[in-house]
Amino acid sequence: MLAPISWPSPPPGYGPWEQIASSLAEGMTARGLDVTLFATGNSVTKAKLDAVVPVGLNEDPALNGDVYGALHAANLFRRAGDFDLIHNSFDWKPLMCALATTSPPLLTTIHGFSAPPILAAYYAAAARSFYCSISDSDRDPGLDYLATTYNGIDPQEFTFVDRPGDYLLFLGRLHPEKGTHLAIEIAKRAGVRLKIAAIPQDLAYFRECVEPHVDGDRVQFLGAVERVARNELLGGALALVHMTTRPERFGLTMIEAMACGTPVLGARLGSIPEIVVDGATGFLCDDVPDAVAKVPLLNALDRRACRDRVESTFSLERMIDAYLAVYRRAVELGSPPPPSDAVRAAREIDYWDRPMGFTDHPPKPATLRSGPGLRTLANHDGSRR
Amino acid sequence: MLAPISWPSPPPGYGPWEQIASSLAEGMTARGLDVTLFATGNSVTKAKLDAVVPVGLNEDPALNGDVYGALHAANLFRRAGDFDLIHNSFDWKPLMCALATTSPPLLTTIHGFSAPPILAAYYAAAARSFYCSISDSDRDPGLDYLATTYNGIDPQEFTFVDRPGDYLLFLGRLHPEKGTHLAIEIAKRAGVRLKIAAIPQDLAYFRECVEPHVDGDRVQFLGAVERVARNELLGGALALVHMTTRPERFGLTMIEAMACGTPVLGARLGSIPEIVVDGATGFLCDDVPDAVAKVPLLNALDRRACRDRVESTFSLERMIDAYLAVYRRAVELGSPPPPSDAVRAAREIDYWDRPMGFTDHPPKPATLRSGPGLRTLANHDGSRR
Repeated sequence: MLAPISWPSPPPGYGPWEQIASSLAEGMTARGLDVTLFATGNSVTKAKLDAVVPVGLNEDPALNGDVYGALHAANLFRRAGDFDLIHNSFDWKPLMCALATTSPPLLTTIHGFSAPPILAAYYAAAARSFYCSISDSDRDPGLDYLATTYNGIDPQEFTFVDRPGDYLLFLGRLHPEKGTHLAIEIAKRAGVRLKIAAIPQDLAYFRECVEPHVDGDRVQFLGAVERVARNELLGGALALVHMTTRPERFGLTMIEAMACGTPVLGARLGSIPEIVVDGATGFLCDDVPDAVAKVPLLNALDRRACRDRVESTFSLERMIDAYLAVYRRAVELGSPPPPSDAVRAAREIDYWDRPMGFTDHPPKPATLRSGPGLRTLANHDGSRR
Repeated sequence: MLAPISWPSPPPGYGPWEQIASSLAEGMTARGLDVTLFATGNSVTKAKLDAVVPVGLNEDPALNGDVYGALHAANLFRRAGDFDLIHNSFDWKPLMCALATTSPPLLTTIHGFSAPPILAAYYAAAARSFYCSISDSDRDPGLDYLATTYNGIDPQEFTFVDRPGDYLLFLGRLHPEKGTHLAIEIAKRAGVRLKIAAIPQDLAYFRECVEPHVDGDRVQFLGAVERVARNELLGGALALVHMTTRPERFGLTMIEAMACGTPVLGARLGSIPEIVVDGATGFLCDDVPDAVAKVPLLNALDRRACRDRVESTFSLERMIDAYLAVYRRAVELGSPPPPSDAVRAAREIDYWDRPMGFTDHPPKPATLRSGPGLRTLANHDGSRR
């Protein structure tokens, strides 16, 4: 199990990718699998821990992520022969190490597409790694997926609160794509208090679009919150506001809120319609006026339905079940089958201009604009071997 | 042969790493070896060319170096089994792919230490890759080296000029560490014209420390120069000024100048004393006044001695000889022997604060300041396998 190393596993606060890797390591170990977790040295696990980087890269920002991230991935792949299956939750870079190996079976959970070029890396490794998406909506047409494996949480870690709270909550990264500014606008127009609990990832955005509205009362900024405070904040909220502007890939905070009984006021975008049952566990909103109009209806939602939804579909145990099935299938198949014609054709489409929810969308290289360069990269999936 | 891909092989202008990789591919092919050159798609070689990146990353700056560089390295390592030996001239990242493989023998020419953290990567791969240094001075005490393999050029590509020219020449990257500002000061104080042929790598430095002195006569800025113009500029110069402020690792332009018969006015630092025979093929200078005092003596140097030095020690054929010997030794040994106690001990020393000529010296991570983190990384050389 290759975890990301921005934070330890499990992360003390924010760190959704590390959280999933950690949950999987613990859950699989509890089910009797012999798991080695590759994570930071200060991680805590019941699996075997193998670490070359002492702490989370974000815990010591002077640690060079480029070098130590690569060492972390290489540390697993030089032991590739020790395992029956490798599960990579550490993005595309480890796949480049994996191309030097032919076994064991490899599974990569794609937690997000940061920018168009990484599609070239995923294409290149498609003959070596199986892929899982974390929602049906977050799929690239140039990739085959073994399954959608929803993220899961342990409902026991979240306290169910049956009475609606009196404030809206924003929880997550402070970044335009997470729509903190929209949450502020909705709360102000609906006349409801807003609590913002987040790390200011995008400082300029924080200073321009968030900080000026913070008054300590109607709009409160709480900074980063740790485990216990997060549980309380979530349980006490009227709703979690999740008006993302870029298609959400999964959205762990939504199921954390729902586990506390708190519904979600979310954008009708990306994975949110897969997670939120409109009118039952929250509302899907088209825009700010729509969301403002839904605020008075939040009180009437059955908070138990939110909790039930998590227990039936987004619990840790359901996630472990889903991944166990995927693990079995990956081991059975050994390596991914050749891509279908449709998938292969999709790689020929100009992936740079594809309407996907890339986190970053840098200008398109002239080399790719001219055509043949794109083909070289897109078709390079190792299948000529 | 894994070439860097900032530029094609050979590079049309600047690009010393690509130049060496290209020269080696051509030279080894000429000696009858079966060579596959992994380089950009627009490279030209008599070896077999394998490419996934269409053009040099610097030729299309929108090409993401992180992704395409990784694809380039992975493209070789997934074919690792096809080769008897892999020669890596593409820095430390390919070593992370190599850790997933145990064969064939791997040789890495370390063209430079960009920043302290990459030492951790070189230590981690020390059990997998042999290392060559490009000068005796550019060695890290925590690494074992199979040899110093000086860079070489084809003297035939440079026209020998037996009469001294009337201008000083600066050729290379415009960066404080290359001492362009010192060359300007020396030329002005010595009352000799200076021609600067370079790409402005560090734009702020160019604007502050170079541009204000450019008058088109006493100080001329010619921008980047291609092959033919470079030859003429080098041959027509009184001397190449190479007053680096950071220890030079090798310094290809010095031997190019000497091939044209042009001596070097160089800093007594790094590799320069290994390349320049003081008082014969140039002068080693301690500081600007020292260099200014040496300018009137340049006319008296025997330009033939400069050419001879290149032909005897820094020619392409000598470089091929040296690498062939290293290749044989690497194949004979298979994998590097365990590090000596002295080398192992050196890794325990605080490599961050080591007085080496790092290109970049970022602040030291707190994790490494505290001790145990450093040990974790420094000792992680794969020898426990």
